[in-house]
Amino acid sequence: MQTVQMWLQYDGSLYNGWQRQPKLPTIQETIERHLSVLLKAPIHIHGSGRTDAGVHALGQCASFKATLILPIEQLHVALNRRLPGDINIRAMNLADEDFHARYSAIGKTYVYKLYTSREKNPFLSRYAMHCPRTLNLEAMQGALTDFIGTHDFASFKASGSTVKTTVRTIESFTMTLLEQDQLVFEVKGDGFLYNMVRIMIGLLVEIGKENIEPTAVPDIILSQNRFNARWTAPACGLYLKEVHY
Amino acid sequence: MQTVQMWLQYDGSLYNGWQRQPKLPTIQETIERHLSVLLKAPIHIHGSGRTDAGVHALGQCASFKATLILPIEQLHVALNRRLPGDINIRAMNLADEDFHARYSAIGKTYVYKLYTSREKNPFLSRYAMHCPRTLNLEAMQGALTDFIGTHDFASFKASGSTVKTTVRTIESFTMTLLEQDQLVFEVKGDGFLYNMVRIMIGLLVEIGKENIEPTAVPDIILSQNRFNARWTAPACGLYLKEVHY
Repeated sequence: MQTVQMWLQYDGSLYNGWQRQPKLPTIQETIERHLSVLLKAPIHIHGSGRTDAGVHALGQCASFKATLILPIEQLHVALNRRLPGDINIRAMNLADEDFHARYSAIGKTYVYKLYTSREKNPFLSRYAMHCPRTLNLEAMQGALTDFIGTHDFASFKASGSTVKTTVRTIESFTMTLLEQDQLVFEVKGDGFLYNMVRIMIGLLVEIGKENIEPTAVPDIILSQNRFNARWTAPACGLYLKEVHY
Repeated sequence: MQTVQMWLQYDGSLYNGWQRQPKLPTIQETIERHLSVLLKAPIHIHGSGRTDAGVHALGQCASFKATLILPIEQLHVALNRRLPGDINIRAMNLADEDFHARYSAIGKTYVYKLYTSREKNPFLSRYAMHCPRTLNLEAMQGALTDFIGTHDFASFKASGSTVKTTVRTIESFTMTLLEQDQLVFEVKGDGFLYNMVRIMIGLLVEIGKENIEPTAVPDIILSQNRFNARWTAPACGLYLKEVHY
């Protein structure tokens, strides 16, 4: 048995997320199905984490154990040839025996895209959040930095998820304005709670709309109350950019 | 009864083309369904032309006749609110009684997108043709200009389509290289035969691959033989950019 590490990209628009589900198309199931054919054995892959329905990946990582009955370069090419156009394996390599895409990860970087033009853009409907409003970018930029550091992010965790600790460290959080009306957020941390990035973005948008004071973030973090963080930004704007090992 | 003209954009990825079909989602059916609810009467819209499954529009035009039971500005906003995110009505206005999106059109402009990077890009799988080859751009640029002018384009008509004449005039045809590996073609003419743009692009790609001489276009046009023009480029790269009246 060998341990294989894969780096992949996908357009999540037409999938019910990463995780295998009965009767629904998912990224995991699609890749496992083709790998199992190529390796003539049932293959189970582990992603660095689950992405929700409609969430995209620029740099997801997955690993699996298998007996490689063909050279890994050939497996890589053959798998890409079989996969649908909206999933691409960027790299495939042998890893240490104890490598595990999820448990070995020490951090992740996410990107979130949003556009503010009055008119909706049908070509962005599955690729960015539409917020047809003038946003106070200065207020958002100020609030953003309050997330950086080690905090208990209980206020930014979707209800229903169970984790041992809700303390996480955000290393960096940036916001870039592209082409007048496109905002791109990039956030890097040692891990993120379920929906945490989308809830943080939702709060920043409320601050941009001046519905919430730009100085409110520290108190909302301290409150450890999900209701204070308001709503969850839509899945379509979220991209898993990189997994750190 | 009033005559209404609409300009619209759509991401055609998830539709079976423009034209209404039983039991399949189409652009026409989607818009008609919502308009009929808003205007409380069955509405039939006419597009400037049909776009095939997977083809996109940046500037499609459509018209319909109806008794407007609400101001047209309100109808415009209400329709956009009801339509799915991948269809957007850019403008809606009253037109002359005899205006007809199809019969009044005197020309169209199409864009075709193609990218040549070795690796496939999962975010372009429904938005551009992937041609992972080094193309001879100079040869393509030379061949392109041979399409300009008035010619009998019988060689560039999909079999099965019946039209009175296959003579068409191409006013302009350009090719632009973006970001090293993205080619954007733009072609304007008084009308296009079924699949004509995609067949011309297919031939240009063969010339770019140096499988066909760059000087071959005039002879292929003269031959009036569909087989000489080779293959049809995929629908996903095609965008109806504008309809001229």
